[in-house]
Amino acid sequence: MTRSATPKMTLGELAERLGARLVGDAGRQVSGLATLNTAEPGQVAFLANRAYLKDLPGTRAAAVLLHPQHAESCPVDRLELDNPYLGYAAASRLFDPLVGREPAGIHPSAVVDPTATLGARVEIGPLAVIEAGACLGDDVTVGPGSVVGADTTIGAESRLHANVTVYHGVVIGRRAVLHSGCVVGGDGFGFAHDGSRWHKIAQLGGVVLGDDVEVGSCSSIDRGALGDTLIGNDVKIDSQVQIAHNVQIGEHSALAGCVGIAGSTKVGRHCMLGGGVGLAGHLTLCDGVQVTGMSLVTNSIHEPGVYSSGTGAMSNAQWRKNAVRFKHLDDMAKRLARLEKGRGA
Amino acid sequence: MTRSATPKMTLGELAERLGARLVGDAGRQVSGLATLNTAEPGQVAFLANRAYLKDLPGTRAAAVLLHPQHAESCPVDRLELDNPYLGYAAASRLFDPLVGREPAGIHPSAVVDPTATLGARVEIGPLAVIEAGACLGDDVTVGPGSVVGADTTIGAESRLHANVTVYHGVVIGRRAVLHSGCVVGGDGFGFAHDGSRWHKIAQLGGVVLGDDVEVGSCSSIDRGALGDTLIGNDVKIDSQVQIAHNVQIGEHSALAGCVGIAGSTKVGRHCMLGGGVGLAGHLTLCDGVQVTGMSLVTNSIHEPGVYSSGTGAMSNAQWRKNAVRFKHLDDMAKRLARLEKGRGA
Amino acid sequence: MTRSATPKMTLGELAERLGARLVGDAGRQVSGLATLNTAEPGQVAFLANRAYLKDLPGTRAAAVLLHPQHAESCPVDRLELDNPYLGYAAASRLFDPLVGREPAGIHPSAVVDPTATLGARVEIGPLAVIEAGACLGDDVTVGPGSVVGADTTIGAESRLHANVTVYHGVVIGRRAVLHSGCVVGGDGFGFAHDGSRWHKIAQLGGVVLGDDVEVGSCSSIDRGALGDTLIGNDVKIDSQVQIAHNVQIGEHSALAGCVGIAGSTKVGRHCMLGGGVGLAGHLTLCDGVQVTGMSLVTNSIHEPGVYSSGTGAMSNAQWRKNAVRFKHLDDMAKRLARLEKGRGA
Repeated sequence: MTRSATPKMTLGELAERLGARLVGDAGRQVSGLATLNTAEPGQVAFLANRAYLKDLPGTRAAAVLLHPQHAESCPVDRLELDNPYLGYAAASRLFDPLVGREPAGIHPSAVVDPTATLGARVEIGPLAVIEAGACLGDDVTVGPGSVVGADTTIGAESRLHANVTVYHGVVIGRRAVLHSGCVVGGDGFGFAHDGSRWHKIAQLGGVVLGDDVEVGSCSSIDRGALGDTLIGNDVKIDSQVQIAHNVQIGEHSALAGCVGIAGSTKVGRHCMLGGGVGLAGHLTLCDGVQVTGMSLVTNSIHEPGVYSSGTGAMSNAQWRKNAVRFKHLDDMAKRLARLEKGRGA
Repeated sequence: MTRSATPKMTLGELAERLGARLVGDAGRQVSGLATLNTAEPGQVAFLANRAYLKDLPGTRAAAVLLHPQHAESCPVDRLELDNPYLGYAAASRLFDPLVGREPAGIHPSAVVDPTATLGARVEIGPLAVIEAGACLGDDVTVGPGSVVGADTTIGAESRLHANVTVYHGVVIGRRAVLHSGCVVGGDGFGFAHDGSRWHKIAQLGGVVLGDDVEVGSCSSIDRGALGDTLIGNDVKIDSQVQIAHNVQIGEHSALAGCVGIAGSTKVGRHCMLGGGVGLAGHLTLCDGVQVTGMSLVTNSIHEPGVYSSGTGAMSNAQWRKNAVRFKHLDDMAKRLARLEKGRGA
Repeated sequence: MTRSATPKMTLGELAERLGARLVGDAGRQVSGLATLNTAEPGQVAFLANRAYLKDLPGTRAAAVLLHPQHAESCPVDRLELDNPYLGYAAASRLFDPLVGREPAGIHPSAVVDPTATLGARVEIGPLAVIEAGACLGDDVTVGPGSVVGADTTIGAESRLHANVTVYHGVVIGRRAVLHSGCVVGGDGFGFAHDGSRWHKIAQLGGVVLGDDVEVGSCSSIDRGALGDTLIGNDVKIDSQVQIAHNVQIGEHSALAGCVGIAGSTKVGRHCMLGGGVGLAGHLTLCDGVQVTGMSLVTNSIHEPGVYSSGTGAMSNAQWRKNAVRFKHLDDMAKRLARLEKGRGA
């Protein structure tokens, strides 16, 4: 897509669009966001974390988004909000050069099947492919080189970046964001073994993504064997994530980079999986489960809370001594019990 | 590719094609597969696992694939087979809408080098690229946006889905299935260090995939440094897998999602690596080795069997207490031995 | 790209280009590299590791690259070098069929925005896309199906293989090598939670890659939230790697396959991360840190050296007994201390 210049606006407009209370010059032009200590005079900064309070007095920003409680320490114009971090998120979208561009329409080099249905203001980039029976809602953007499979539906205002692949028979909700290299609808990993070799099980299900789903670069969401892989509304998926066939992810859950979820596992609503977490197949995680980075989960979890596995890094010399003992842990436990018995402990 | 409607057939035809014994109406039309409890009247279900026996009496399926021992509990027509799971696999392929389509030929937007050799009934999708000297066997399908490198050979009946990349000088056997985003033949990770910086080692080898190999979405199989990376017949590779240069995988082995195998490691035949398993470089795993999910293997394995590492997930509070002790495990072991010595244990 | 035949040269030319001392027939034609025990009469082999000294007497190579100390054991012509492994690296590049090809120019099917700037001898493959304002230096090669985003700069002599995606506003230095399926500049994983749902934080920063950076297939380097993700000169990144927003990697560091680095973490210079290593967010690793495969790092590291976590694989039966004890490690430690107290240890 073509990037237009960063949007410009006045502090007054910005305050109005953020619902913030402006203390300062409503007519001042601002043209971007930055951190307190890197902001230049034309930019807006924010204070959302006390750890950065020390940077407030010295900021050169045109204005700062902050909570009223920090007003007195602010050396420049300010935009007061009860939740400055949400304010920063909203402001970031206002300054996003990709937002509010004029749609470029359908590039002549794109290959769009005549049976595909395109909504209003759809943008299809150079060398993209839209297969037979696909249906794109209003204001959908398909980046260069992306492929939308046959009979796939993409909801209004969704954006596929460049080189995204969506297979046939997939349903994607509204306002989805799919990053480059991600693949939605590839075959699940299903084979039957006859004692000597594998026989493929055709993956006849699909994938359904709810509204407001984001999928990071190079992530895979496989189609179901029978029935669909289901990703709920407002689920956020980072890069390099693998979601196997017939997995279900509840609304508002977030999966960090390199997460892998095996087949038919159900993750609840408002769950958070740290980077590199692995979930075995056919498990159920209830709502509100958090799993810390690189943990392996092999049993279902029925209580909300934070779960972990593994051991933290130490010097390799220290680790060698301890890791070898791990192989004798059961033996140590038995010897310990014998000793206690011996002294009537 | 364009998806045709799900194939329809009669129970009689289905029984014949599966080699099953039909007890029921040979003329009944069926149009798809489903599970026992989701099947609609026009669909066929299967019972391959006793855990689902409870769903058999209530099924609304037109017919059920099952073992004769469960015949009496089946309320509808049935297809009796000694191995219903293999029967399900075979039926799934009969109902696969991608199978038995008329090949669409070579799309005018594809770029096919005049020196490439194309077999009979080859299908090349929109905006695919076939480089100089490439050779595609009969009935090969190359999806939209895929790139087949120079001098690469792809065996008969193989399917590359959309946006697959195969580098130059790669050999792929018959009936391969390569999913979107996978990359076969990228450079192995080879650099020589001169004490201050890295010098690239050109990766002059290739990759050879046997027959009946499947590669999942966004997986990488790197080319050899000198000599080839070798993937045996009937090896099944899931999504997000990394196979480094000069790795060898024996026939009929299966690698689940997110597996990573470092350079020059040899995996035997009929091995199964669980999701997220990591194999260090220059190892040998004998035939029949299974490694459970997210295990790290740093030594060769010479006995068939199941291997594991790591620790299961627990509550973060419990984990914090235990994980910190791991750093003192060696010390604990020594103290335990002292105590035993002290009491002449 | 089209592959030309493997370059041919005489031993004399090879010795001169490697700065090696030739003992043998300067006029002999050689046409490739191989290992000592696989080399054919027309090929050159090398001895860089004593482990392969046993293969030297029996080699059929035309000549061997080796250290003078092994001259007497060499049955054929030899090229003497103080560092034969660096010599092998240099020779591998001389024999790389991709090097020294005539650039093929801009393929008519590529879509190059008229506002893009192209240096001398730029090669743009079939069906590649160069967006508005992009700038490609001299001798840049862009492979088939690759997409270079708006306002992105790619330094001289860089090569993008097929189906690479570089987003808008990215800066890539000279002599970069980007492998197929890799994605540079996708959005970092940034969302603000309002207590019930997620709000996207537009990722307004970019990515800056220094000179001589290599990125493996299907790897992701995300753009910064505010400010850039920074990859130093001569950083080598393997396949299936995830680098999150605002990460910084120091010069000459190497990241093996499947590494994942969370947001805002800083890795020093000359660091080496083994396969599958995970670094938590907001950490600092000093220069010269090595982390062994699949280790999890959750704290900053201030001393150079080798670090590890986890436990090695064992038989599943042995593992089950020991892993269950891990959950009681804290209890065991307390009981051990009580016993010691009891006997005045």
